[in-house]
Amino acid sequence: MNAAELPSWRETATTRSILEFVDAVTTAGSPDFVPEADRVAVFDNDGTLSSEMPMYTQLAFALVRAAELGKPTTVEELKAGGLGLVLELLQLTHGSVTTDEFAEAVRAWVAVAAHPVTGAPYPEMVFQPMVELVGALEVNGFDCWIFSGGGTDFMRAWAPTVFGVAPHRMIGSVGKIEFEDDGDDGPRLLKGSELVTLDDGPQKAISIHQYIGQRPILAAGNTDGDLQMLEWTAAGPHRSLQLAIHHTDAVREVAYDVDPLLGAGTDKLLDAAAAGAWSVVDMAADWATIFGGAGA
Amino acid sequence: MNAAELPSWRETATTRSILEFVDAVTTAGSPDFVPEADRVAVFDNDGTLSSEMPMYTQLAFALVRAAELGKPTTVEELKAGGLGLVLELLQLTHGSVTTDEFAEAVRAWVAVAAHPVTGAPYPEMVFQPMVELVGALEVNGFDCWIFSGGGTDFMRAWAPTVFGVAPHRMIGSVGKIEFEDDGDDGPRLLKGSELVTLDDGPQKAISIHQYIGQRPILAAGNTDGDLQMLEWTAAGPHRSLQLAIHHTDAVREVAYDVDPLLGAGTDKLLDAAAAGAWSVVDMAADWATIFGGAGA
Repeated sequence: MNAAELPSWRETATTRSILEFVDAVTTAGSPDFVPEADRVAVFDNDGTLSSEMPMYTQLAFALVRAAELGKPTTVEELKAGGLGLVLELLQLTHGSVTTDEFAEAVRAWVAVAAHPVTGAPYPEMVFQPMVELVGALEVNGFDCWIFSGGGTDFMRAWAPTVFGVAPHRMIGSVGKIEFEDDGDDGPRLLKGSELVTLDDGPQKAISIHQYIGQRPILAAGNTDGDLQMLEWTAAGPHRSLQLAIHHTDAVREVAYDVDPLLGAGTDKLLDAAAAGAWSVVDMAADWATIFGGAGA
Repeated sequence: MNAAELPSWRETATTRSILEFVDAVTTAGSPDFVPEADRVAVFDNDGTLSSEMPMYTQLAFALVRAAELGKPTTVEELKAGGLGLVLELLQLTHGSVTTDEFAEAVRAWVAVAAHPVTGAPYPEMVFQPMVELVGALEVNGFDCWIFSGGGTDFMRAWAPTVFGVAPHRMIGSVGKIEFEDDGDDGPRLLKGSELVTLDDGPQKAISIHQYIGQRPILAAGNTDGDLQMLEWTAAGPHRSLQLAIHHTDAVREVAYDVDPLLGAGTDKLLDAAAAGAWSVVDMAADWATIFGGAGA
């Protein structure tokens, strides 16, 4: 892979480690060569591919939708209520609609929503260097997948064109769905309010097995909830690359180690990165550009 | 699509309906044109892509493995015990191993197992016309997926090369998996004995939403357990094709309407096919060849 394929990455040791890895696994005859069918890469979404500050994009949608549904909730209430209240909010705002209606509601919101800090549309609050990396990996024969703690249905409604990743390669948390057929105008899938799978921590490794059935050779994440995904990738039979995205840029994004809303930390991830010689992406140092669009 | 792409299909009305459909959705400018990204096809496995007689391939494996584990079970006991005993047998023979160990056990069995009627290896007990159809659809820009009542892990261990379908596009029933990491030689995924999802009936439509996130435009099945998958496909926004595979050939395979082991019927599927003008594949009439290999 040529540095020109990653124009938003500075010429640092981290960037060189990515370029060298891709060359090693894609060059026929290399001792680390990996056939195309085995070139699977997995990425966390919030905080890894896109900004999760000041809150997950999905929560911003949920707050607007809750207000529309007559149950307004403030950010302060969410912070005080923690994960329990967040799940309650998601159940309220993501259930009792058909899958088609939900996708339409998400798209309608994304079309008009503005990021509270930059004022940019949410599709422009994604990390340009990571969009370039996903694209360059695909060009080099990789299949890129997203494994997010966020909802599968939420991501698929707006993000496939943003990241250039097909809907089936966007996996996240999953709620209960019922098949309904009243015999009139064809069957419908109704979203319930029960959470079936929270795609975080060890579940990300399990989901990778369930949805892909192959061991990735590249994994990128930014919190302790991504640790097992990176560990699972590191223990595979091929040479592999682990990227820990470290939020170090207080000027162009936000410098933080602990998610202020849900408290997801980075201690374990960064410790594992140091112990396993994983690449830590220092956003301030390694990225020439963070947001490519109006978010800059 | 040219008839030459389906050499094992006779020149019948059914075959013509397939050729005409593929032409209509793949020809630019056609009123029924479907962009490549939306060309998704879904297939049941047992009885649709491969023979399920005298019993599901996975059950044949389970019986051998149960005997190895010291719990021999006969086919007569299975018939008497029904689905309950089948699930018990699957839990015994599919649990308490790592995902890697299980895949290895399946591959080791497939490498030596012989079909009880034909003596052929199981990878040759697949329907040659359907293998051709899957391949021809892929050539015509379709992504083909398998949604089976059988186990995801079982199918992925041996079937991807047989059908030319990547592991992540083989979806079936799923059992509980635990992530284990004792800190020594990397994490492992341990298969438990609890069934999480039985991928049959309405669940097939739900699984299609969960794993693909797009509405298929072609669906093929052979029992009432595939009905909702075909209904869900038929109700999509694009023109679509539904294929009901009817086991009518007593000479070259088995003529049956009800699965003798688990009792899965075909009444509802065939009624829906008649009502919805779905294509019914009459195996005796429509297929020049049923098994391409030693199963013939």
